[in-house]
Amino acid sequence: MDFNFPAIGIVHSCFKEKFGIPRQPGLAPLACAEIELLPPYDDPTAFEGLEGCTHLWIQFVFHVNRHANRHANKREEWKARVKPPRLGGNKTLGVFATRSPTRPAPIGLSVVRYRGISEREGKLFVQVSGVDLLDGTPVLDIKPYVPYVDCVLEAENTFAAAPPELIAVDIPAALMAVCIDYWKRTGTDLAGLITQVLQQDPRPQYQQPDPDRIYGMKLLDLDVRWRYQLSENQHRIQLIELLQTQHTNPNP
Amino acid sequence: MDFNFPAIGIVHSCFKEKFGIPRQPGLAPLACAEIELLPPYDDPTAFEGLEGCTHLWIQFVFHVNRHANRHANKREEWKARVKPPRLGGNKTLGVFATRSPTRPAPIGLSVVRYRGISEREGKLFVQVSGVDLLDGTPVLDIKPYVPYVDCVLEAENTFAAAPPELIAVDIPAALMAVCIDYWKRTGTDLAGLITQVLQQDPRPQYQQPDPDRIYGMKLLDLDVRWRYQLSENQHRIQLIELLQTQHTNPNP
Repeated sequence: MDFNFPAIGIVHSCFKEKFGIPRQPGLAPLACAEIELLPPYDDPTAFEGLEGCTHLWIQFVFHVNRHANRHANKREEWKARVKPPRLGGNKTLGVFATRSPTRPAPIGLSVVRYRGISEREGKLFVQVSGVDLLDGTPVLDIKPYVPYVDCVLEAENTFAAAPPELIAVDIPAALMAVCIDYWKRTGTDLAGLITQVLQQDPRPQYQQPDPDRIYGMKLLDLDVRWRYQLSENQHRIQLIELLQTQHTNPNP
Repeated sequence: MDFNFPAIGIVHSCFKEKFGIPRQPGLAPLACAEIELLPPYDDPTAFEGLEGCTHLWIQFVFHVNRHANRHANKREEWKARVKPPRLGGNKTLGVFATRSPTRPAPIGLSVVRYRGISEREGKLFVQVSGVDLLDGTPVLDIKPYVPYVDCVLEAENTFAAAPPELIAVDIPAALMAVCIDYWKRTGTDLAGLITQVLQQDPRPQYQQPDPDRIYGMKLLDLDVRWRYQLSENQHRIQLIELLQTQHTNPNP
């Protein structure tokens, strides 16, 4: 029994690759995205009333995934047991006890902050923040968050009881100057965004950080590079380079 | 751009028709359902770890809906503006500002309480409660509720700020005796379930209740019938009949 659904929109996100995306929404509040609505869903009347909502559910397709169904009607592979990065990548759980992207119906679910709606060059966009969405993600549905229903105060989850621990991020003065210049040019709080993203520690948890290795991720229109330092038995991240990329669309 | 997803399971619910189903999950905690997993998703190892979760997200297909895509690959109709019953059925909102089942990708989202997993006659079932799911609903995905992510304490929604107001439900002594007998036979707290469901007032909010009309809904293996009474300027529901149906499967 199969069901076919249209994408109503496409995500334009600050996250240009999978590596480094926070493992859940809300962990990097400055992470912004806009959802470009595709015709015929680019009808402003379909969004009347969103102004009464502070948060939205985004239901989306995990489209970049070795098991994902890259083409409509191609059945994806799935595994009954997965190794969630949150548990260090060496414990297994049943796929339905996790939020793993590798699942029979690879539909993601993220709550994001609603920032507004805008029209530009004949296109309609929904702005959101606090995202964990990869650039290019197809969106299946946008729903209002209904606090009295969706916020279950008595709920417990022993495998994901609290947010991941944060690690310190050092931005050297020369790179802070680059961030301030970027902020002046674009209005984006780059230092804040980099800190919120890197303090999640994007590194796979089962790897010991290698102090000689340079790690990197694409964020906005930048290549962001860092190292790990061990200080007082705690790992810290030191930002070492911010390179403007040639080919990446910086939006949003 | 279309995406094709398998149903991983089918809901067997106490709600045998759309009328009377609470408008959100959690409003009738005694409303139980079980999700029968379909092959090849009926693999118990795929559910290892659910015991650490008190609540689950069910992503499902709104399958009985005049606009729904009854057959895979048939594009459903949708309307940009809808009249949510919650607002009395006479105000319009954009479809994406509502949880209306009539939407471009008719994928429903409900948080339910996890009750356990069981095998019976070679089939695997996930038991849940607090459901707003119609019997026969195809399930696309089951995900753990992650409180620190999904429970957004600062979220607001001005169009659905609080649960609907409840109305009083009177169960006459003769019908209470039927409920007690049902409870002894099946273990189901029928009086409690009927009260939780009817106190939501299933009647369309834009209709004035007609004191001469008999309202009814199918619940479990019963036809439940009631009237409205006006008392001290408030409507009350009086249960008037509980009839065993011949053809309905009482499960769960």
